[in-house]
Amino acid sequence: MEETKLQMLEPKTKVGLVIVLTGRGKGKTTSALGMALRAVGHGMKVCIIHFMKGDMYSGEQTSIKKLAPYVELHLTGKGFCGIQGNPYPYKEHRANAQEAIRIAQEKIFSGQYDLVILDEISNAVRLKLVDLPQVIELIDGKPPLMHLVLTGREAHEEVIRRAHTVSEVNEIKHAFRQGIEPQKGIDY
Amino acid sequence: MEETKLQMLEPKTKVGLVIVLTGRGKGKTTSALGMALRAVGHGMKVCIIHFMKGDMYSGEQTSIKKLAPYVELHLTGKGFCGIQGNPYPYKEHRANAQEAIRIAQEKIFSGQYDLVILDEISNAVRLKLVDLPQVIELIDGKPPLMHLVLTGREAHEEVIRRAHTVSEVNEIKHAFRQGIEPQKGIDY
Repeated sequence: MEETKLQMLEPKTKVGLVIVLTGRGKGKTTSALGMALRAVGHGMKVCIIHFMKGDMYSGEQTSIKKLAPYVELHLTGKGFCGIQGNPYPYKEHRANAQEAIRIAQEKIFSGQYDLVILDEISNAVRLKLVDLPQVIELIDGKPPLMHLVLTGREAHEEVIRRAHTVSEVNEIKHAFRQGIEPQKGIDY
Repeated sequence: MEETKLQMLEPKTKVGLVIVLTGRGKGKTTSALGMALRAVGHGMKVCIIHFMKGDMYSGEQTSIKKLAPYVELHLTGKGFCGIQGNPYPYKEHRANAQEAIRIAQEKIFSGQYDLVILDEISNAVRLKLVDLPQVIELIDGKPPLMHLVLTGREAHEEVIRRAHTVSEVNEIKHAFRQGIEPQKGIDY
């Protein structure tokens, strides 16, 4: 590997991008994790805030600890809301997502991070756990050079309108539909 | 975080999945990197083999070193073939991709890995740098419990037929088309 070649792509104009990962397919959160990994390789400071999930982040948690102090992970969710027989009431999900918004405001407006990932925030909007204006405020008010990644299916059009890059992940096939249980290291 | 809850999803039946990430949108390689990160969190052994790219993997390289000895990274490509004014001749790209196939065979058939990622292999097939039967041999001959991830746009239908999970990443918007240069930590 020729290390000397690796710095050649420093952009002349730095832009803090707004990136939206949406769609129903597998790979949105995973892609955001990959972005965190890549950013850490450049010595950038990353903050990941989950809006929906809780119990399932076992692999990620352990890995992310290996990337400390460059990556901070905030888990506020309590599992999936409204699906998979999740026992928590709406009120509790809303309170959790609102706590995530509070953390996101604090972290984003602190100016201390190069990359902030709001994982599953679009799901949280769709399920009315956070309000669209709260998300818009984060996007419009972020530090100009900070990258912001928002994941979750069915991203709101107002969010898409503000994004520089939007990728939609569609499911062509899924192991789950073939009766295969979630697998360690892949699904969680 | 309640650590005690995190092991609850151990599947009754372990399956080594074949996962295909395809489509033209941003996030296929990034998603594969995220999978590597997740797998490492479970103490799984990961091998990533790139088929097409070379010079641009700066962020990833540094990060992946932080995950050693759990993740091995093999870069054999010499930049993009046929686009971006890449100066290397086809013969050299083919030789590089064939070296990647040789490494993939060695690593996959060794049975020493829990997850192998063949990054941009579908591009390599499309550009005739590797032959479809070489890819099919890897899929059909892999250890049953090893997960195999194949990325690259326009995955071949024979590859898709063999996959458990196929996600297609489509580009809805891209910063590049708004005249924004590739940004460190996001694009490389």
